[in-house]
Amino acid sequence: MRLLGISGSLRRGSFNTALLNEATDLLPEDLTLEVFPLHDIPLFNSDVEARGFPPAVQAFRQRIRAADGLLFAAPEYNYSITGVLKNAIDWASRGENTDDGADLGSPLDEKPVAVMGAGGRLGTVRAQAHFRQIALHNSMRVMIDPELFVPRPWSKFDEDGRLVHERTRERLRKFLAAIPAWVRMWQANPIGS
Amino acid sequence: MRLLGISGSLRRGSFNTALLNEATDLLPEDLTLEVFPLHDIPLFNSDVEARGFPPAVQAFRQRIRAADGLLFAAPEYNYSITGVLKNAIDWASRGENTDDGADLGSPLDEKPVAVMGAGGRLGTVRAQAHFRQIALHNSMRVMIDPELFVPRPWSKFDEDGRLVHERTRERLRKFLAAIPAWVRMWQANPIGS
Amino acid sequence: MRLLGISGSLRRGSFNTALLNEATDLLPEDLTLEVFPLHDIPLFNSDVEARGFPPAVQAFRQRIRAADGLLFAAPEYNYSITGVLKNAIDWASRGENTDDGADLGSPLDEKPVAVMGAGGRLGTVRAQAHFRQIALHNSMRVMIDPELFVPRPWSKFDEDGRLVHERTRERLRKFLAAIPAWVRMWQANPIGS
Amino acid sequence: MRLLGISGSLRRGSFNTALLNEATDLLPEDLTLEVFPLHDIPLFNSDVEARGFPPAVQAFRQRIRAADGLLFAAPEYNYSITGVLKNAIDWASRGENTDDGADLGSPLDEKPVAVMGAGGRLGTVRAQAHFRQIALHNSMRVMIDPELFVPRPWSKFDEDGRLVHERTRERLRKFLAAIPAWVRMWQANPIGS
Repeated sequence: MRLLGISGSLRRGSFNTALLNEATDLLPEDLTLEVFPLHDIPLFNSDVEARGFPPAVQAFRQRIRAADGLLFAAPEYNYSITGVLKNAIDWASRGENTDDGADLGSPLDEKPVAVMGAGGRLGTVRAQAHFRQIALHNSMRVMIDPELFVPRPWSKFDEDGRLVHERTRERLRKFLAAIPAWVRMWQANPIGS
Repeated sequence: MRLLGISGSLRRGSFNTALLNEATDLLPEDLTLEVFPLHDIPLFNSDVEARGFPPAVQAFRQRIRAADGLLFAAPEYNYSITGVLKNAIDWASRGENTDDGADLGSPLDEKPVAVMGAGGRLGTVRAQAHFRQIALHNSMRVMIDPELFVPRPWSKFDEDGRLVHERTRERLRKFLAAIPAWVRMWQANPIGS
Repeated sequence: MRLLGISGSLRRGSFNTALLNEATDLLPEDLTLEVFPLHDIPLFNSDVEARGFPPAVQAFRQRIRAADGLLFAAPEYNYSITGVLKNAIDWASRGENTDDGADLGSPLDEKPVAVMGAGGRLGTVRAQAHFRQIALHNSMRVMIDPELFVPRPWSKFDEDGRLVHERTRERLRKFLAAIPAWVRMWQANPIGS
Repeated sequence: MRLLGISGSLRRGSFNTALLNEATDLLPEDLTLEVFPLHDIPLFNSDVEARGFPPAVQAFRQRIRAADGLLFAAPEYNYSITGVLKNAIDWASRGENTDDGADLGSPLDEKPVAVMGAGGRLGTVRAQAHFRQIALHNSMRVMIDPELFVPRPWSKFDEDGRLVHERTRERLRKFLAAIPAWVRMWQANPIGS
């Protein structure tokens, strides 16, 4: 089962990117995780879209379609998710047709998804609340429990970006362990189709 | 009194940009409005920020500082504000120092602001709710009433992007008329300083 | 399959109670729906709870446990769900033990749920957004799509409280038709246990 | 200047009621604070309202009208404010006429308000976000900064309900100190009228 990881921060030393990297080490056996960096996604503009998805967007959408589920690491900027992440979702949420004109919908439609976040004193709780409302628009299947908030990440990661806080490692492990059953349930129950 | 207008959509035919344009015609006497287009604002990245604000960001921040208030036209994408708008806010929300090292704070800090939006069947109500939570982070002074939601804009603007729906014109006029007193009150009461 | 219906309004002529009543007529074959009125639920007080759940609360909790799923009709008061409905949820969300001391959890834990609402010009969209965040706390399984908003109900119900607006009847029918598969999926996948 | 304090919890040992009590000790000189307990407010029902406000509701509304501002202590139950508090707001939000038929509006209209909260690991941040959206409906003037979140109150109050955590006392003091200027500004600027 293949997960696509998406970090809402472009910063090299981002705690959220580090959280995704750490997740790679703590995955249950039946999961793989690759991270798609958002650096090359341009600002959404439907005039541009009308001429065709830009290459980075095209690649992003294909990787989403190919994945069994998505794992978002969502920093909180200004009490919400980052513009970088929202902009990527705006591109990914668009429908498209095949060359034959068949409606492919959006790669996000009914996608199994999990969201976690590191940051601040409150652990990105406001960002995750916004994310869940946003995800509703494409009927994404956002994992309900457990939730994972990582407050004060500066005290939990070391200088090399490794998660050294044992209790948080354990929480992350449990969070990841819940994903395969979540994804499988939706794959077995394509309710919206 | 000078307002800076900010549309959350980059699309040439955007109803929200059209709403800002229409606002220019319906302003009360003591207001002027110029629109700052967000096309050249790059994705926020604090590694980039560490090397200095990019020119378009620098210009955006200066225009915000120079304005007495901001007027946002916020489309609703995926049940929230656009990534384009959130990304611009993420850049504008950052603090900065003068060359002498004095703390200038963010251009958004305690800024008088009004938000309106056009789109969908529900008129961007979800986007505006997110916007208000986001604005709280910089203690922006978001105008409380009236609120302005423009549902089904396709039936209210003509092909040239003019707002031809009389009742909506009247609502927009009242909305704009409330702004000067709002801005003046905050200028006379710099509470947070 | 048995649904318990819960209206957030106590008013006799409530559009939301009327919506639940109408739902009884439009149910798919495999569903039954009974409505639990909230008139006798007292204000939540954990000092009272410590002496045992009041009879109406006890009855409410038992009916929730006995139901396969819950159908909420949520009016919007003051941009959120009603205090009446929130108060009922507060009582129902509490854990309890059997006489033997075994942990029964809350009757709401992981309950399959659907939410709809009638009211206002925007059809209770803000109330439903709050409801979804509230439901997350007990890991309720809130149906993702379709959503059902009924704006301007005064123009859609007749004087006897019957839903006479044909398009809304059709939407309600589709909404109800999606519930059995939603409930069954969760019954077959007790993920959280 | 007179504040009316409103705690969202009915529990005798409530941390939020304790926070209001502590506030009485830490008020700036020009403020007084009396607490109105919500125990006798019945469930909102507009059929009841049509026959006249119940006595406890009447008293609550009069006390709100007589106060210069309101200070809410909002616990977080189920990721939102309590039903008890929401229900009190639902009653207070209703308009009314004088005996002569003049429109008095709601006692909450444009009321200067501050909100704080104690509870949980995240300090009621979700409840306060909902409160701010709710308050918008009556154009309440909710103090923007500082915000006051008191996480893990069990470690900050002693057995007699006194706030013994020095840093939190200092934050509470600053929070209260910001209220008089907030109230005075709105009294000097009756914008909505």
